[in-house]
Amino acid sequence: MSVNLRIPGPTPCPDDVLQAMSRQMINHRGPEFADIIGRITESLQRLFETKNDVLTLSSAGTGAIEAAVVNTLSVGDRALCVSIGVFGDRFADIAKTYGVNVETLSFEQGTAADPQEVTDALKKDSSFKAVMVTHNETSTGVTNDLEAIAKAIRSVRPDILILVDAISSLGSVPLPIDAWDLDVVFTGSQKGWMVPPGMAMVSVSKRGWDAVETAKIPRYYFDYKKAKSYLDKGETPWTPAVSVYFAMDVALKKLEAEGLARIHERHARLGQFTRDGVKALGLKLLADDRVASKTVTAVRVPEGVDGPALNKMMRTEYNTVLAGGQGPLTGKIFRIGHLGLVSEADLQACLDALKLALPRVGFQPAMAAR
Amino acid sequence: MSVNLRIPGPTPCPDDVLQAMSRQMINHRGPEFADIIGRITESLQRLFETKNDVLTLSSAGTGAIEAAVVNTLSVGDRALCVSIGVFGDRFADIAKTYGVNVETLSFEQGTAADPQEVTDALKKDSSFKAVMVTHNETSTGVTNDLEAIAKAIRSVRPDILILVDAISSLGSVPLPIDAWDLDVVFTGSQKGWMVPPGMAMVSVSKRGWDAVETAKIPRYYFDYKKAKSYLDKGETPWTPAVSVYFAMDVALKKLEAEGLARIHERHARLGQFTRDGVKALGLKLLADDRVASKTVTAVRVPEGVDGPALNKMMRTEYNTVLAGGQGPLTGKIFRIGHLGLVSEADLQACLDALKLALPRVGFQPAMAAR
Repeated sequence: MSVNLRIPGPTPCPDDVLQAMSRQMINHRGPEFADIIGRITESLQRLFETKNDVLTLSSAGTGAIEAAVVNTLSVGDRALCVSIGVFGDRFADIAKTYGVNVETLSFEQGTAADPQEVTDALKKDSSFKAVMVTHNETSTGVTNDLEAIAKAIRSVRPDILILVDAISSLGSVPLPIDAWDLDVVFTGSQKGWMVPPGMAMVSVSKRGWDAVETAKIPRYYFDYKKAKSYLDKGETPWTPAVSVYFAMDVALKKLEAEGLARIHERHARLGQFTRDGVKALGLKLLADDRVASKTVTAVRVPEGVDGPALNKMMRTEYNTVLAGGQGPLTGKIFRIGHLGLVSEADLQACLDALKLALPRVGFQPAMAAR
Repeated sequence: MSVNLRIPGPTPCPDDVLQAMSRQMINHRGPEFADIIGRITESLQRLFETKNDVLTLSSAGTGAIEAAVVNTLSVGDRALCVSIGVFGDRFADIAKTYGVNVETLSFEQGTAADPQEVTDALKKDSSFKAVMVTHNETSTGVTNDLEAIAKAIRSVRPDILILVDAISSLGSVPLPIDAWDLDVVFTGSQKGWMVPPGMAMVSVSKRGWDAVETAKIPRYYFDYKKAKSYLDKGETPWTPAVSVYFAMDVALKKLEAEGLARIHERHARLGQFTRDGVKALGLKLLADDRVASKTVTAVRVPEGVDGPALNKMMRTEYNTVLAGGQGPLTGKIFRIGHLGLVSEADLQACLDALKLALPRVGFQPAMAAR
């Protein structure tokens, strides 16, 4: 019996995507690789709904966060970081590490950012060069209303840089990059893309490229300009994770055949299915339904239950792998991933297992439901 | 008919290694991944002949070069870079990019570094904090006498940091890290390790860790300390290229079963076989036999022959993929990789194809042999 891998990435991959991972190596500076990276780039532009340049980096998503910072900012630049959890905080931490003067606008764990507060912060200080924002906060299962936030930002500062961590949203939930006028937006292969980890993908607008020209934080491995100049000849500057490119090539064909509208509908439906099922078990969600993520659901660990013990029992006795809480939410929540290759049957199996496991770790539904 | 991929990485992978690449995803923060990264780390320590910490990074080899610089040095630090080609120059470039005050000691393309000149440079300026050196220069097919260089360095500066780019040598040719007292030594999965690209592996000595403590260049994605603290709990700080870890786990078992002595003997034998075969065709090698690399051979493009045209004909008509020249050697050499999964039959097929292709692109053996 295969494992029910219900973490928010790496996500399970389809058989043909995995098969592509086992292809024999090719010359990463030859014509076949040029065809692959060309196809991938064009497909990502369509799925990102952007005419911007799209670059691929061989790294984890955190590498893409770092790349966004070091390519567009300089030491001492003021940046506003809108944080609703661990990954928003990481965005701020990385910028601070590289000398950016970051003001973090934090919202309570489990809530979304208030666009009005973003506007207020920008009005109070006209020196901000960039706003950094997480679209979908994987640590709390909350999706920001990025459209409203972007509109609010542009209403005050039409030309400010908007840098978006869309690692666990792009390709799974609506995020039309050009329509929302976003400058740097990045994701990772191991999320809704149904591909193993190893590739980060980033969209860079004209405004983003202008920032690159003046940005002075040193960069080499993650240099956008090097990536772009090599992409123009069908290569990457450094040896790419070739197998992940093979796999992405296959996965993108599947995603394009399905179409963005159906992909988005599928994630919306499975998110609702998960939340409904969790509530039916008498459990409470961390996030309000209005802001709940369509890719990952955070569930409060009921009183009297040991969160890590529950996750361990689910794994060892029910073959179901959940994610725990991160940072301040460690032990307080568990999380169910429902992005990429996942069906209602997978989620039902997860809910069924929870129903059996919960009482065994001390859960009393009647109490929790009050 | 399968392609004869004769570039110096990515190298062909064994079937079972490729099969491991197609394994379904697992939780990168669960016990199974902890077992894998634990096994990989211990196996690499044995094959690196070191008791130092060994870290794995999800990046290309160039990411490992960057990591070595940003983790051990500060802006304004003096470093001596011993360069015998493109990758030595890259090491210097990366250090300069991050504000290191680099003096480059360059040797002619196709030659090895002279340990005496390294000693002289260190004697002239006692402010050097580190020496950066490439073990095997992939762009010229030359292996430095790293043992002699390290001894020369230590004779003048017993406590200086020695940072070694061993990307295309470690695991293929002798490089006993502890015996030679080297501080930071790194390689990449796609070389002699017979694994697809996506993982870099680095050994950090006590002296290296002391440097990390005082080094002030900002770092995040490539932070050794974060990698070490997560490794201690069987994880990586950021989502790792999980599939490459599966593959490395399989490849290392094969390499350990073969044993270092036999691996080294195999590469030495195949290097000699390649050079003998190339010379028998009437071609000239870039490097002297005494310094010629056991993992990649650089061949001078004979007068009157168009190098890129030869490589293209080899690829399109003889199913054999060679590497071209890089940087100043573009068009002047072609290169034959013979590291990792490669047999005498593969190399003979490559030589046979060259014999047929060369006259068709204007080669006249008699002339070249003069």
